[in-house]
Formats: sequence, structure tokens, C-alpha cells
Amino acid sequence: MAVMRLGRIAHTEGICFAIIDGPADAPLDQLVAKEISGTPFTPPEPTGREWPLSEVRLLAPTLPTKVVALGRNYADHVAEVFKESAEHLPPTIFIKPSTAVIGPGAPIKIPEFATNVEFEGELAVVISKVSKNIDPEKWRDHVVGYTICNDVSSRDLQFQDGQWARAKGIDTFCPLGPWIETDLDCINLDDQKINAYLTHDGKREQKQDSNTDQMIVKMGDIIAEISQSYTLLPGDVITTGSPAGTAPMVPGDTIEIEIPGVGSLKNPIERA
Amino acid sequence: MAVMRLGRIAHTEGICFAIIDGPADAPLDQLVAKEISGTPFTPPEPTGREWPLSEVRLLAPTLPTKVVALGRNYADHVAEVFKESAEHLPPTIFIKPSTAVIGPGAPIKIPEFATNVEFEGELAVVISKVSKNIDPEKWRDHVVGYTICNDVSSRDLQFQDGQWARAKGIDTFCPLGPWIETDLDCINLDDQKINAYLTHDGKREQKQDSNTDQMIVKMGDIIAEISQSYTLLPGDVITTGSPAGTAPMVPGDTIEIEIPGVGSLKNPIERA
Repeated sequence: MAVMRLGRIAHTEGICFAIIDGPADAPLDQLVAKEISGTPFTPPEPTGREWPLSEVRLLAPTLPTKVVALGRNYADHVAEVFKESAEHLPPTIFIKPSTAVIGPGAPIKIPEFATNVEFEGELAVVISKVSKNIDPEKWRDHVVGYTICNDVSSRDLQFQDGQWARAKGIDTFCPLGPWIETDLDCINLDDQKINAYLTHDGKREQKQDSNTDQMIVKMGDIIAEISQSYTLLPGDVITTGSPAGTAPMVPGDTIEIEIPGVGSLKNPIERA
Repeated sequence: MAVMRLGRIAHTEGICFAIIDGPADAPLDQLVAKEISGTPFTPPEPTGREWPLSEVRLLAPTLPTKVVALGRNYADHVAEVFKESAEHLPPTIFIKPSTAVIGPGAPIKIPEFATNVEFEGELAVVISKVSKNIDPEKWRDHVVGYTICNDVSSRDLQFQDGQWARAKGIDTFCPLGPWIETDLDCINLDDQKINAYLTHDGKREQKQDSNTDQMIVKMGDIIAEISQSYTLLPGDVITTGSPAGTAPMVPGDTIEIEIPGVGSLKNPIERA
């Protein structure tokens, strides 16, 4: 399947889903947003309306009823944050609520009580249909495609609360985007770079420089296991955990998560 | 305000919201379901259609986007489950997904991997409007009324996973109902009985026999604190934690949570 990106955009007259068209490696200002009728869950039918991407605003590409997230799924990140070997701390499931979701470019707003807030760049998938007990070998039949999730986390609340629902579920703490890449062959799940760049005081620095080869539970097994517990609904997001390199962000910073082949998700940090 | 119960019902021609009318202490078969137009979030307007409650089926009274739950909020339950004083284990927030919600009478279905599954009878509120940073003194302005939540929990998964999202979020693990009691003065929040009765092998036994006087964080502060992190949407549920007396359930059992003044929520247990 050729590269195809499905996005959700705000244009001058409203909001719609759109094919984000153009060469895979073209800069954003050379891409075109082509409105489609319907949703990402049916074959896209262009309506004929289109805009240069620079004249519209990308929104979160999906409106999930829930974001199911994996914690401690990268060996390098477990060692970094939990000071433990991944053998002793297996991956664990948690939920980020729909109200935490924002799109590309929207500000991550940090309230006063959420201290030590870090980014976590993650590869995510968007569910395509009502699904339960998915066969790990057939996970591709249940997803629209890949997107990027920034699993923003207040490390202080995370360890103080024990449960992560608040530390990771605060409004704006779930940037998603920039779009859904529907070509599941666009990346190699066993050897895929995940990068994060933090701009602080005007200086851009690479913080995450990891690879899906550090993933403990792999995509098919993640989706299969989660779907044993939860019915997954169209638009729901499963995010597969963060590799090492997470670091604190403060108001005024900008964080960019890049997964080459999928895209780049950039958000400024503000005080709530 | 007089007793008014708002329910959601399945009748022979469809699904609707309804006033569940009749004396506060009347048995279910003497109540009448009076269809209303619109939702529970606007003043109820009867359409004129009505049915004896015995001829319709009560559904979960709300379709929440999220159920925000409090763990460890009853001193007696903390001592019982966590073998610790509540002083050392403060209350904590977690999320039950919308897909876990079922209504009165619907079966709680336990999958094989969820072992040691217990009920937890809880007083819950249903949110009435988009809310953020609620003033603890004004929480009544943001709720439709009270309902009952059974925070079904696999104790084994809960302690194995560390995070509770799976143990408490499995499909069917969030019975809600039987209705929303809109009279917030129907109970005394500082002295309100919470009872649970388990029927096992045909024998009905009271298991929970506690009181909201055991609550650590009180209603106004619970709602205020949760709304500092999460935007609350109409229909969302906040459930305030379980008192002592939780106990295992197995397929074939029936569990009934009773909060006098609010109602009674009864569900059979089945194997998924």
C-alpha cells in the first residue's frame, strides 16, 4: 500500500477528515489537505475540496473514547525511570482519558500541582472497528494505521499517587498526531527509530534517540492482550510505551516527537 | 426537592430516558417509567408515554465518557485490603473505561485470567455539565444526582499489575444504577449506610455493612480535586470509593449493592 496519511483539520468553514497528500519526505508546506466524506473507518472518498496544509490547522487525527497505554515496555526506559531491571518490573496497562487529547501545535498546559513534567515519545495505533479478543497475528486487520503519542507525565504525581491516571491523564497531557499513517509497512516494527527533540531557551537538543528494538512486548501481543480485557472501539488509541531519554519540560519549551516514516508531533509547553 | 429518579430504559420500541415514578419505598413492580424527551442534563419533560417498570428493562442510567474512581477512600477498606493504615496510603485516582459499564441485572462476566474477583459497593455521582476546577462548596451545581457503582476488581490482577486499569476496567466490571437519584438531600453524606449482599449457593448474606462516616476525602473535595486534573463531561461518573466488606464472587452468584435512599443495584455473575 502506498503512503497515505489521514488527518483531521480545521479549515475556515469547519472541521473535516482529510487525506494529507504529497511526497513522503516533503516539508509540511508542500502538502495538500484533501477533504474526505465520512470517517477514517471507511474507504476515503475525496469530496473535491482541498487546501494547502499551510492554510489549515491539523487537529488530533482521532477522537478516541479511550487511550490505552503501556508502561514499562522499553527496557532502556525501565532502567532509566524505575531504577530496576525490566525483568522485575513487567509492562503494565493504564488509561489516558479522552479529555487529555490535543492535536499537533496545541499547547501542553501544566498546572501548578503537576511538577516534574516529562515527555514520552511513543508509537501508537488507531483502532478501526469494534474489536475483542484480537488474534495477535491479525492485529493489522483491526487498525487504521500508526500515529504518534506524547505520553506526557508528571513524574512527581506518578510516584506520589502510585496510580498513574492523574499524572498522565491531566487535560492536554495526550498530544496525538500529526496524522494517521495507514501504510503499516511504512516502518519496520523491530527496528524503528523514535526521536524526541526538546527546545529550551531557544536551543534544540535531541533527548530521545531510541529504537523499537528495545520494545519488550511487541505490537501484535500488545493489541491482543489489551483486547482480552477491553472492547476496543473505532478511533480508540493504543500507545506502546516510551523508550529512554524522557526529560523534564517547562513552560516556554517546545517538544517534538519524531518517528521517521510516520511523522513528527510538535507541541509548545505553557502554564495552565 | 422531592425524590426524583432518572433512569434509562429499553422498552419494546427502543431506548429512552425516563422518570422512574412512585413512592420512595415502593417495590420495583409498583413503579412506572415515564419517558422524557432529551437527556438527564436538561429539565425533564415527560412525553406522555409510560410503562410499568416491570415491562421495561433498566439500563445503565448514564453513558459516561469516563468513570473516575477513588481508591483507598474508606479507612475500614484500606485496613482490610492493603493491610496498612490509611495514614500511610492516601486515596488515589484511577479510571474505569466506558466499555466496562453495564446496567442493573446485566451479568458481570469474569474472564479466565481475572482471578479473585471482588465486588466493591460505592456511592457515585453523575456530572451534569462541562466542568473544570469545581469549587468544593459548589459541587452540587455540577451533578445530576447520585447513583451506585459496583467497582468490580480482580484482586490478583490489581496487585500483579500495580496499575489498576486492567483489574478494574475489564468489560462488565462497572455496573451502574439502578437510576440517578436527583434529590441530593435524600441521604446524609456524613452518615449514610452502604450495604452489599452476596447470594452464593442460594444463600444471601450481607457482606458490606458500612457507612460514609468512614470516607476519608469527602464529596466536595473529591469532585474539586478530580476536576483540577480532568475536564468533566455531562454523563461522566465519579465514584467515591468502597468501604470494607468486599469479598470474592464466582459465576452463579448474585451481588446486590444497596444504598438506602438511592436504590439497589443487582447483577448476576457469569463466566465470560
